[in-house]
Amino acid sequence: LRTKLPAVGTTVFTRMSALAAEHGAVNLGQGFPDFACDPRLLDLVADAMRAGHNQYPMMAGVPALREAIAAKVAALYGHAYDPLAEITITSGASQAVQTAILCCVHPGDEVIVIEPAYDCYLPNIALAGGVAVPVSMALGDDGYSVPWPALAAAVTPRTRLIIINSPHNPTGAILREADLHALADIVRGTDILVLSDEVYEHMVFDGVRHESVCRHPELAARSFVISSFGKTYHVTGWKVGYVAAPKPMMMEFRKVHQYNVFTVNTPMQHGIASYMADPAPYRELPAFYQRKRDLFREGLSGSRFTLLPADGTYFQCVRYDAISALDEAAFSEWLTSEIKVAAIPVSAFYSEPKESGIVRFCFAKKDETLQLALERLSSL
Amino acid sequence: LRTKLPAVGTTVFTRMSALAAEHGAVNLGQGFPDFACDPRLLDLVADAMRAGHNQYPMMAGVPALREAIAAKVAALYGHAYDPLAEITITSGASQAVQTAILCCVHPGDEVIVIEPAYDCYLPNIALAGGVAVPVSMALGDDGYSVPWPALAAAVTPRTRLIIINSPHNPTGAILREADLHALADIVRGTDILVLSDEVYEHMVFDGVRHESVCRHPELAARSFVISSFGKTYHVTGWKVGYVAAPKPMMMEFRKVHQYNVFTVNTPMQHGIASYMADPAPYRELPAFYQRKRDLFREGLSGSRFTLLPADGTYFQCVRYDAISALDEAAFSEWLTSEIKVAAIPVSAFYSEPKESGIVRFCFAKKDETLQLALERLSSL
Ligand SMILES: CSCCC(=O)C(=O)O
Ligand SMILES: CSCCC(=O)C(=O)O
Repeated sequence: LRTKLPAVGTTVFTRMSALAAEHGAVNLGQGFPDFACDPRLLDLVADAMRAGHNQYPMMAGVPALREAIAAKVAALYGHAYDPLAEITITSGASQAVQTAILCCVHPGDEVIVIEPAYDCYLPNIALAGGVAVPVSMALGDDGYSVPWPALAAAVTPRTRLIIINSPHNPTGAILREADLHALADIVRGTDILVLSDEVYEHMVFDGVRHESVCRHPELAARSFVISSFGKTYHVTGWKVGYVAAPKPMMMEFRKVHQYNVFTVNTPMQHGIASYMADPAPYRELPAFYQRKRDLFREGLSGSRFTLLPADGTYFQCVRYDAISALDEAAFSEWLTSEIKVAAIPVSAFYSEPKESGIVRFCFAKKDETLQLALERLSSL
Repeated sequence: LRTKLPAVGTTVFTRMSALAAEHGAVNLGQGFPDFACDPRLLDLVADAMRAGHNQYPMMAGVPALREAIAAKVAALYGHAYDPLAEITITSGASQAVQTAILCCVHPGDEVIVIEPAYDCYLPNIALAGGVAVPVSMALGDDGYSVPWPALAAAVTPRTRLIIINSPHNPTGAILREADLHALADIVRGTDILVLSDEVYEHMVFDGVRHESVCRHPELAARSFVISSFGKTYHVTGWKVGYVAAPKPMMMEFRKVHQYNVFTVNTPMQHGIASYMADPAPYRELPAFYQRKRDLFREGLSGSRFTLLPADGTYFQCVRYDAISALDEAAFSEWLTSEIKVAAIPVSAFYSEPKESGIVRFCFAKKDETLQLALERLSSL
């Protein structure tokens, strides 16, 4: 078979979740909560089904949901999107990423990707015929950061898109105001677009604010901004997310979207739209996850793991050089099969083999789950 | 913006549904039922949500659903797919079509499309960098049919994929055993793949059987077979469908799928899996829709519309040359705005302007809806 992605395997998340299941390991690998979502959200979806919202919604999404998103973005980040022309509901953030890349990256176009990078960017760039230009994050005592001069140096006349992701998966790093100013300086005067993956926007800790590109009109004017209700409302299996972008970019996005999924599950959209009327669930999320992060960090503080900073997302990265000399993939497999705690090797987020001796744990778990994992990990 | 699909507009379905809403017209344009689905199906989905099935399912779909599909295909068409390796749940048939095309069509590859053709094939071929090679259906007294010699003549060494669709949207034509033998003769000894869009598989009338490519091992061995629960269970807004293919093809499909939607709504998958335990709903579908087709045809029999054969799908095509000399797009708009019944111009399903004086009505509607439309249409 002469196919488009010959070198691509199964995602590391699928492989590690399967390995965790095989070994009965506590799964701190793939990022998803193991606790229940708010039952009120389920009732709202069930109500929407019973009210008959089961046929195609508008192609770009249920208007009430798009309006609720626009209101949220305006309230949190001060940017006013036109809900009908500038917001589209997607089948999770993944579909938004693929569709955004496919609609604007031409064969030969370069796309700058900051590594480690969530694993869907590179294959989607390849699918579009584009060329990924990776820029490695710097790793210092205060964690990972984006080396903007190196990124500026990677720009060429063929650069079409820069992908940023904050809060950042897998490192938990967050971009600050100065980072976005640095990005704005790089793209100013060019026709480079930005894809801003903000799926962990409501998981930023220690009172720091999420630096959405929506706060920066100059960047918002050239950005696809992507978020995910699966992450925010603890329903990763629902596959409902959204993309916001200025109208001309959104028109192009929708040309591809309408021939991909065409539209997104109607009753879920109605249920989430009603649920968004109350901002408490996402307002309470930073404190909710900060407590879990702290519980997990405290539990590992006496162990031989070295904790990296974790400013956002529901991931904690750790060094294990005091425990093992295995490479990250082998160490993750060993942790899963022998210690019965699954992790994700950070090396899986690089385009070229790169070993940092770091693995990622997901702390979006019940306290009991975290305690069980901590018992196993702290013996190391 | 230098984008991938500059010439693409908004789909005809979205445009005609918007026009119908604007004019308060009975919407027989976009294909979707206006009646409720089985409430038991809603209960099963609500149960699945409350049982906690709200996180990522397996990337390729909930195993119980894939097993139910394999059992159904084996029972109806005698083909045994491996549910885990050869079936993937998709976000509707649309996503299956896009992903299948993206995973195997390279820039410059030719894809044979039989016209009139459902509107998503051509833009997805363009997105993959492929070249669509349209072959027009013949239109005789007994309706539309595929001219196999013309199709055979369209094959070149660059032909990568042939897309077939039976029961056929928009014409309602169905392929017979002889058609599939003709197709098999064309692809035998080549490496041409087949995409078989069978979303209306359970809507075949007058006792004729659906000629799935799954009945023909030689074809099944090189085919992506696509179907849709939205169509079968009257829930077009749920966006759950599937693709079946031999393992090597499915592996390539999943490489793209996992970076597109990654996976499909979990509670819907569980609900549908349970619902499939009872074959009655899809076994009863032919009779259910045949009655609606007959009601609609009888209602138009005294009018100046000429009815084309309608052997499958929930669409009825009609000639209107005795009523108007407008082109199909203009006639459809006039019907919608003035007569208050929306239709879809068949010309929208052709790559090059082609006028046949035919429009398509959807009869997947409550009897009252059909009666109201018939009152308006039969006055013409
Ligand atoms: C789409 S499966 C991966 C979930 C996730 O975002 C992660 O684990 O990083
Ligand atoms: C995806 S909207 C179009 C629905 C449909 O299949 C049709 O009307 O032909």
